[in-house]
Amino acid sequence: MQVGMIGLGRMGADLVRRLTRHGHQCVVHDVRPAAVAALQAEGASGADSLDAMMSMLKAPRILWLMVPAGAVEATLAQLTPMLSPGDIVIDGGNSSFRDGIRRGTELGEKNVHFVDVGTSGGIAGLTRGYCLMIGGEQDIVTYLTPIFRALAPGGNGGPGAANVAPSPNGHARDDDSATAEYGYLYCGLHGAGHFVKMVHNGIEYGMMAAIAEGLNILKQAGIGKHTHEVGAETAPLRNPEYYQYDFALPEIAEVWRHGSVIDSWLLDRIANALRKDPALDQFAGHVSDSGEGRWTLEAAIDEAVPAPVLSAALFSRFSSRGQAGFANQVLSAMRQEFGGHAEAAASSPSPSTPPAKDA
Amino acid sequence: MQVGMIGLGRMGADLVRRLTRHGHQCVVHDVRPAAVAALQAEGASGADSLDAMMSMLKAPRILWLMVPAGAVEATLAQLTPMLSPGDIVIDGGNSSFRDGIRRGTELGEKNVHFVDVGTSGGIAGLTRGYCLMIGGEQDIVTYLTPIFRALAPGGNGGPGAANVAPSPNGHARDDDSATAEYGYLYCGLHGAGHFVKMVHNGIEYGMMAAIAEGLNILKQAGIGKHTHEVGAETAPLRNPEYYQYDFALPEIAEVWRHGSVIDSWLLDRIANALRKDPALDQFAGHVSDSGEGRWTLEAAIDEAVPAPVLSAALFSRFSSRGQAGFANQVLSAMRQEFGGHAEAAASSPSPSTPPAKDA
Amino acid sequence: MQVGMIGLGRMGADLVRRLTRHGHQCVVHDVRPAAVAALQAEGASGADSLDAMMSMLKAPRILWLMVPAGAVEATLAQLTPMLSPGDIVIDGGNSSFRDGIRRGTELGEKNVHFVDVGTSGGIAGLTRGYCLMIGGEQDIVTYLTPIFRALAPGGNGGPGAANVAPSPNGHARDDDSATAEYGYLYCGLHGAGHFVKMVHNGIEYGMMAAIAEGLNILKQAGIGKHTHEVGAETAPLRNPEYYQYDFALPEIAEVWRHGSVIDSWLLDRIANALRKDPALDQFAGHVSDSGEGRWTLEAAIDEAVPAPVLSAALFSRFSSRGQAGFANQVLSAMRQEFGGHAEAAASSPSPSTPPAKDA
Amino acid sequence: MQVGMIGLGRMGADLVRRLTRHGHQCVVHDVRPAAVAALQAEGASGADSLDAMMSMLKAPRILWLMVPAGAVEATLAQLTPMLSPGDIVIDGGNSSFRDGIRRGTELGEKNVHFVDVGTSGGIAGLTRGYCLMIGGEQDIVTYLTPIFRALAPGGNGGPGAANVAPSPNGHARDDDSATAEYGYLYCGLHGAGHFVKMVHNGIEYGMMAAIAEGLNILKQAGIGKHTHEVGAETAPLRNPEYYQYDFALPEIAEVWRHGSVIDSWLLDRIANALRKDPALDQFAGHVSDSGEGRWTLEAAIDEAVPAPVLSAALFSRFSSRGQAGFANQVLSAMRQEFGGHAEAAASSPSPSTPPAKDA
Repeated sequence: MQVGMIGLGRMGADLVRRLTRHGHQCVVHDVRPAAVAALQAEGASGADSLDAMMSMLKAPRILWLMVPAGAVEATLAQLTPMLSPGDIVIDGGNSSFRDGIRRGTELGEKNVHFVDVGTSGGIAGLTRGYCLMIGGEQDIVTYLTPIFRALAPGGNGGPGAANVAPSPNGHARDDDSATAEYGYLYCGLHGAGHFVKMVHNGIEYGMMAAIAEGLNILKQAGIGKHTHEVGAETAPLRNPEYYQYDFALPEIAEVWRHGSVIDSWLLDRIANALRKDPALDQFAGHVSDSGEGRWTLEAAIDEAVPAPVLSAALFSRFSSRGQAGFANQVLSAMRQEFGGHAEAAASSPSPSTPPAKDA
Repeated sequence: MQVGMIGLGRMGADLVRRLTRHGHQCVVHDVRPAAVAALQAEGASGADSLDAMMSMLKAPRILWLMVPAGAVEATLAQLTPMLSPGDIVIDGGNSSFRDGIRRGTELGEKNVHFVDVGTSGGIAGLTRGYCLMIGGEQDIVTYLTPIFRALAPGGNGGPGAANVAPSPNGHARDDDSATAEYGYLYCGLHGAGHFVKMVHNGIEYGMMAAIAEGLNILKQAGIGKHTHEVGAETAPLRNPEYYQYDFALPEIAEVWRHGSVIDSWLLDRIANALRKDPALDQFAGHVSDSGEGRWTLEAAIDEAVPAPVLSAALFSRFSSRGQAGFANQVLSAMRQEFGGHAEAAASSPSPSTPPAKDA
Repeated sequence: MQVGMIGLGRMGADLVRRLTRHGHQCVVHDVRPAAVAALQAEGASGADSLDAMMSMLKAPRILWLMVPAGAVEATLAQLTPMLSPGDIVIDGGNSSFRDGIRRGTELGEKNVHFVDVGTSGGIAGLTRGYCLMIGGEQDIVTYLTPIFRALAPGGNGGPGAANVAPSPNGHARDDDSATAEYGYLYCGLHGAGHFVKMVHNGIEYGMMAAIAEGLNILKQAGIGKHTHEVGAETAPLRNPEYYQYDFALPEIAEVWRHGSVIDSWLLDRIANALRKDPALDQFAGHVSDSGEGRWTLEAAIDEAVPAPVLSAALFSRFSSRGQAGFANQVLSAMRQEFGGHAEAAASSPSPSTPPAKDA
Repeated sequence: MQVGMIGLGRMGADLVRRLTRHGHQCVVHDVRPAAVAALQAEGASGADSLDAMMSMLKAPRILWLMVPAGAVEATLAQLTPMLSPGDIVIDGGNSSFRDGIRRGTELGEKNVHFVDVGTSGGIAGLTRGYCLMIGGEQDIVTYLTPIFRALAPGGNGGPGAANVAPSPNGHARDDDSATAEYGYLYCGLHGAGHFVKMVHNGIEYGMMAAIAEGLNILKQAGIGKHTHEVGAETAPLRNPEYYQYDFALPEIAEVWRHGSVIDSWLLDRIANALRKDPALDQFAGHVSDSGEGRWTLEAAIDEAVPAPVLSAALFSRFSSRGQAGFANQVLSAMRQEFGGHAEAAASSPSPSTPPAKDA
């Protein structure tokens, strides 16, 4: 099929590459001419403007937006007047599902079809394939099947069922529509794709935090070797003899990848990182968060669904960027007011901060 | 009664002052001679050694230890050989209830009575009185009633029921043993006093954190005034128009003290602190924690009782001291591995860190 | 002043009573005629329709809405066409601050003044006075001062500084506008009152949960008395000797009210409840939550402020109503899949559920 | 090698099978004769008593204990008098690392070698191989290499590097001792194996909870279809139009297994379970927990390492078994005291519980 890709960042460029390899024709545009030129050199047709792109695409046009969530609205505002009835606009970025619902309605009024595609896989997706979670009108999504097959892992070897990677469960499906095992899925009406991707990212945050907390506990398992002074503000470590370990984190992350219950793609990633840099010294630990982790929590709150793990993971990221600072100052101020307690010194990276006595 | 006070720090010295004012005779000792001299000048009898103290006290001796939790064991080791059957040893500090159980047994084998007293009130206790949570043999605790009356709030005006502050609930008790309204309580056998004090401090941590988080949310309520750039790592604040406030935190803390549901002694403390220093700039926000917050969680775990709020409050304190650092580095490392994401910059104290896109 | 009160539920009726006692004239309306009649018997003027109320109020009219958050929009829709320029509409309920911002703008276009008042105090407010957090145009709020004085605790004895309850801190203010000590506060433009009340309720949730978790830990402190069988799914309680207590919760809640750090109005409430019903058997423990707890979290998320305690408190309420059910089924299903583990039996109210072995 | 296996439950029996397949000779014992007979039929040598087993094993004996954590102490007490210097005792169950340290010392005094092996893999381990985390004396662990090779995934095809499954990262090791890629690892001195296994299980809890919470949010994504009444205790769902989805959870869990960031062995498990029973109706959702989740938290507390995600996951399990019941009753009691609020009805499994107004 012919696809117009708008936005040639890390993800957009790789989508084009994977589509091209599977025989699809890509017309590409980006506000940075160099990004366009780079993909042109790899076989895509470059468009130096949205106008140009529109004239290069055959009706009904298929347009895939892969721009930052914050830029989708502006891009759509520019694009919409150029669209014709029957055209298909795909938002493959990390937009809120709420925007997907609205955009589906707004474009639908012009007889333009809107499809929201949650795209997971990161930089590994180029070779591994992407997991695609799709919302919109079902017949339009079905029409786009060749594109999703090319991008999803099941299509690694080219189009056709024969090349689809077998399910790890060895499960045979009679139903032709059982696309989940190929790595793409029609999830429901407008916004459904981004809703499912949103929750996916919420889970991702929780899994990442679980691994991170666990490795931190292993990292500090030698705390008993340090001596603590006894003071008015100090409760001594009761059993220093239990914390005399000096664990090799790269080896531990590696062994967990072989036969354990927590074997996972995220564990593969941290094993790789620890092999290269066992102390992770190159990282300051200020962790970004995408809108999707936040939106997952908002959905949980709207639905009255408890999400203590997903929220703890999100708040840890906020804290890693210093956002708890004032709350901590409040705590110190209260402790001084009621107990005359002086503040503790920051202990990073040393684990030996002595705990102190409260009133 | 005659009481030997060992340990004349902030708390021990004030206990002596309050006992003296209520007519009790105090013999005092501290490893710092100046601390002994100071209280001697206020009417206490100074002892320059534990030996001296023992000879100054009439049998059966009443000894009150008010030393750091980490120093109780060493002090008891020194003291125990000097004790006679019938003597009473009170641990008024922040020891673990587990130690109280053990010490009760060990001293009991020598016919020495051990009493554990959880003491809350901080530096305000001198004038306000202390809340005393008491464990040990019931008849021994009853024998010590005059001491507890002097220290607890109900005894402010001197001994005797007539001077006891009425219950805020206007509740009349027929039972003479209803001492809770005076501010002291026999809680049970050895360790019971420190167990109840431990949970008290756990609750304290939770309440403090609730106030701190709330004030932080108010503090950042003007975030919508700041502009955010749109980038690949950015999800825009969806509704900046909602976050245009510039709240006066000292006034808000003050108004909540008058008629609100969250009216509390801790709120009084932060209102005081904010009045003096609205930005709390003198505090870095590295918050100590006593053993009691930790032990409360351990008890919850042993009992299989969920304690999500108390644990979150404790962990926030750990994080405030940089103890989450390696976990955050792990998160950054994973994000770079799967998505090629660069780290965010730390945003403290600015609230405007842009959230970023995850894979 | 003359005030029209719309909504005569628990809170609305008590506001009328308190206003009336302070010499204000109240015109009252409710969809339930009996509620109107009851207050008419206490001296208010009853209006059997909004139309009637409008004609009974002198210009500029002051209208106080005290209806459920979910009914404010419909009431305003009915009311707005009847309003004249210069009229003042007060929303004293638990609306979202976002609605306050919008309503301020919408009514402002008709030259009607909108004031949002967060009102805390519950059923005790009638005698204790209410804590009022106020948003809107500052001159309008100043104009309404006599009403706020009557409702807030500082105005108990009538208008005038002499009757104002002294600050517990003994702090003297030179500034006449220091109203916080009277129990009411101008917080900022439209929505500011409900924003501050929202955060107040968020803190309230956290404080309540801290107390509840602590009391639960005390409640289960006798778990060591129960014997546990040893089985493949069981890890034994390591130290049953530590958990042999049988604590008297009503006495403990009472003693904490006298001199402790956690002395608070909420603790007063649970001490009252435990005195009447020590086991709290009349309560099933399905805990409601208002919109304000949810909105506090949404604000924290928008601001990137960590709120682990406030979120844990909210999620505990969701869970108390069974909302974690499916997540728990997922956990059980995973455990069966990987380890062949059968489910544990529910243990409520017994604390003796044996923990089991994971793979 | 010759191994004596004590304990033939699910795990012990499968370990024997896998050892036998790799050419090791197993002598087996269990308190249930039928379990012994079953494995005898598969080629193991049965011992009807520990005494018998001891005489069937050649010196130095290798004894592998695979009994419940709560039964290890009693088994060791029975076994120890029969041991000779040079014998090796392996604890492969889920014991606390603290016990491992103690047992290593105690047995070492008799010149018996103690090895603690954390064993992950569950019922899939028989074919997939087990992930082994090992503590003890390094030379003893090296001596046992053939056993660990047989049990770990790397040994699937028999002994020898040629049969080792390649690392997913395609990483070649020069170091012969790089055993982590085979699925077993020497972690350090006594207790190190169980420490690492303990943290592994802590991470497992967090990952499981992340998946469970996410699926629960998807499950309730149709909540907007239900109507809510407006009442004094109700804050309406602000945007029901956003929650109109009816997601197919089995398909979603499946699609995430193909190319997504959260691809993991645990996700495989829940995908399997959902395929068989999409509503998971056979599960009540009372989730057991092993000692290891608890011990992970205790280690975090001792080390002052924040573990908000791991603790939230553990507490969710406690709550699933009704252990939050009294805390919830406390919340309901407080709400009635201050606001006169009646309790909400439990809403499981319906997601439509109306939230209510707080004071």
